[in-house]
Amino acid sequence: MPFIKKPVTGMRDILPEEMELREHLMGIIRRVYTSYGFSAMETPVVEHIENLTSKQGGDNEKLIFRIMKRGEKLTGSEAELREGNFDALTDSGLRYDLTLPLARYYANNQAKLQKPFKALQMGSVFRADRPQRGRFRQFTQCDIDILGDPTNLAEKELILATTEALTELGMEKYGFKVYINDRRILFGMVKVAGFPTEDTEKILIVLDKADKIGPEGVDEELLSMGYDQSCVSRLRSILDSYKDSAESVRQMGLDIDNEDIKAAALNVADIMDSIAAMKSRKIDICFDPTLVRGMGYYTGTIFEVKVESFGSSVCGGGRYDHMIGRFTGQDVPAVGFSIGFERIFTILSEDGCKAPREAEKIAFIIEKGMDPAKLGEIFEKAAEERQAGHQVFMAWMAKNKKFQKEGLASEGYTDIREFFNK
Amino acid sequence: MPFIKKPVTGMRDILPEEMELREHLMGIIRRVYTSYGFSAMETPVVEHIENLTSKQGGDNEKLIFRIMKRGEKLTGSEAELREGNFDALTDSGLRYDLTLPLARYYANNQAKLQKPFKALQMGSVFRADRPQRGRFRQFTQCDIDILGDPTNLAEKELILATTEALTELGMEKYGFKVYINDRRILFGMVKVAGFPTEDTEKILIVLDKADKIGPEGVDEELLSMGYDQSCVSRLRSILDSYKDSAESVRQMGLDIDNEDIKAAALNVADIMDSIAAMKSRKIDICFDPTLVRGMGYYTGTIFEVKVESFGSSVCGGGRYDHMIGRFTGQDVPAVGFSIGFERIFTILSEDGCKAPREAEKIAFIIEKGMDPAKLGEIFEKAAEERQAGHQVFMAWMAKNKKFQKEGLASEGYTDIREFFNK
Repeated sequence: MPFIKKPVTGMRDILPEEMELREHLMGIIRRVYTSYGFSAMETPVVEHIENLTSKQGGDNEKLIFRIMKRGEKLTGSEAELREGNFDALTDSGLRYDLTLPLARYYANNQAKLQKPFKALQMGSVFRADRPQRGRFRQFTQCDIDILGDPTNLAEKELILATTEALTELGMEKYGFKVYINDRRILFGMVKVAGFPTEDTEKILIVLDKADKIGPEGVDEELLSMGYDQSCVSRLRSILDSYKDSAESVRQMGLDIDNEDIKAAALNVADIMDSIAAMKSRKIDICFDPTLVRGMGYYTGTIFEVKVESFGSSVCGGGRYDHMIGRFTGQDVPAVGFSIGFERIFTILSEDGCKAPREAEKIAFIIEKGMDPAKLGEIFEKAAEERQAGHQVFMAWMAKNKKFQKEGLASEGYTDIREFFNK
Repeated sequence: MPFIKKPVTGMRDILPEEMELREHLMGIIRRVYTSYGFSAMETPVVEHIENLTSKQGGDNEKLIFRIMKRGEKLTGSEAELREGNFDALTDSGLRYDLTLPLARYYANNQAKLQKPFKALQMGSVFRADRPQRGRFRQFTQCDIDILGDPTNLAEKELILATTEALTELGMEKYGFKVYINDRRILFGMVKVAGFPTEDTEKILIVLDKADKIGPEGVDEELLSMGYDQSCVSRLRSILDSYKDSAESVRQMGLDIDNEDIKAAALNVADIMDSIAAMKSRKIDICFDPTLVRGMGYYTGTIFEVKVESFGSSVCGGGRYDHMIGRFTGQDVPAVGFSIGFERIFTILSEDGCKAPREAEKIAFIIEKGMDPAKLGEIFEKAAEERQAGHQVFMAWMAKNKKFQKEGLASEGYTDIREFFNK
């Protein structure tokens, strides 16, 4: 039976040219983040199914690739199986993000880590999403997280580092902007507007669509769900009165009589002020009271970077102060920012971005039948060139040498040297 | 319910210090291989279950992590399930090596790849092995492969490049040696010695243990399996007469009247000659007629690098000319060499090897309560240092400043600057 040539659905093979650009871009991200003192670390791509399905991951939990138990543990599950309990067959799965495994990692290794711990992760995550253009089932995320700092110095550093990485990646020409909000502002607004607090999640799901359906769309949908005009109008009035500037969110904290909003608004304004106080870099940051972010685990500040011309979010993050506590019984403040590497890669590569050539590329083409000793001498010559920092590609001389040389030239081998038996 | 803190069985969290050394070592391997014109490329870690279980992977096929079908495809398998057919539940699995996915990749992308295609892969592979010290269920391999070259120029380059990588990694001080053999020599010897050819695999499994049980052990085990003393003695005599040097394997080809052995012996001797002809580097290479290598897919030359003082193989590879044909219907000559990264890493790191420090590490510790504008100025100072190529770690001043500074110093932050509100 012939084997299957295509990659599994939704995943892909990465060709050399693409790989070169990917490694170049990841190198830039790594360099910037390292300069901020973030330490690279790694978790396994396989995670306990109990952790993956612990209601931290929102909709991503529906997209888990589950791994089957093995050996006796598998066959021992036959009874459950006969009752249609497929869950009994699985003990682990592929991680859907880098945050949940990081929380487990911190809980497991706390004593050996610096405080605060500044983590850098670049790795594959997996989601069995409906296959569609530009969406993959295995994709790379580049995350930085600060664990153990309860103050917003952590948010400030994450925003500085991530925007610097974007700038170094060459994303400035596409115009990117940081949007910030706080979960507590969202909860507070819903309450102050008079909605039933138990409906908060439902209402936030509607608010999250503001980007796509506009303010009128949000209001209509809320009304169609049966909420009072007065609640909808109050929410609309808050959303329209306070937005964009640090002054505006600070004013929100002064005007609205809700403890959560007061604390969160001051916090957001303070973050924006420090970022704005940077003279050497102009970072576009804006308060967006409609920013929601889907993940269940966020507890405070949330943020996103959008590239206007592509209308899409390229980075996202926020504070998740309670997740580590689920592992250890004791909360550890935590906040993270994730670069959606595939999105950035697509923007840059479709715009013709290429990895700079780092070494001179030389091709040695050798007439067939060269004797071993003479070949040894040619190897020696190649070694000298490599020693000098060049890249040497070796191949037999093809029958159609012209065609071979054209092929090599198209791969950047313009210096082609020929070796004959003579 | 509290979450599970430990990684899944057999996998592990990589701490920052270990990660630094890993990245440093991988950087060396990448640099050497790139200088030989190998192109980095990548396949998904998830592979079709049909490909993974196609009898190419030898014993590794018993160690596959299988991924469950999702949605209707899963629930639709209930009928098979009731008959205990667990295989019906899975459509994919985690790759157990980088070679099989590479063959699929080549078959899928052939038209877009250089000829010969020199592939470099550094990635995770997965085997549900019995957990034991130094063995992990997710581990890194660094493979180079040459696809499309039927000649032994490919073997020669793989050996040169891999040994150069080992030298650059600092492995020379542990004394490593390349062992080479050819599957055709193995098959030929079994036949010439008079064993039944259908028992070849069984006999090779015994031969493969020569390392552990010695020549007497091999002979005894073969006798105990019921083979004739005459066969065992003939095999022993061949094994003892031809070994180590290029002259010896060449002589084997002259002495023994078997076409496969003649062709393969000349081939092995020729490879050894070219490697020995290198003047600038002394590469220890040795013919070992007892070298077997387990993978089902090898068809010709096979090789291994052993570190004598650790008695273990750190690299392995060989020729697998028929695998790509299983995907395309047309064979493509192929040969690869794989560095067992974890083994190398363990040897070096247990010997105290550390990643060299690349940037000056500066810590800014800041008194709590700093106002946003002043914090902005501190961010600016940090940006200047980072611009100058330094690494700046920022944190609040701890109550126990002495302890904090000691901690920072132990992580290499000897330049610690303090910022007060005043």
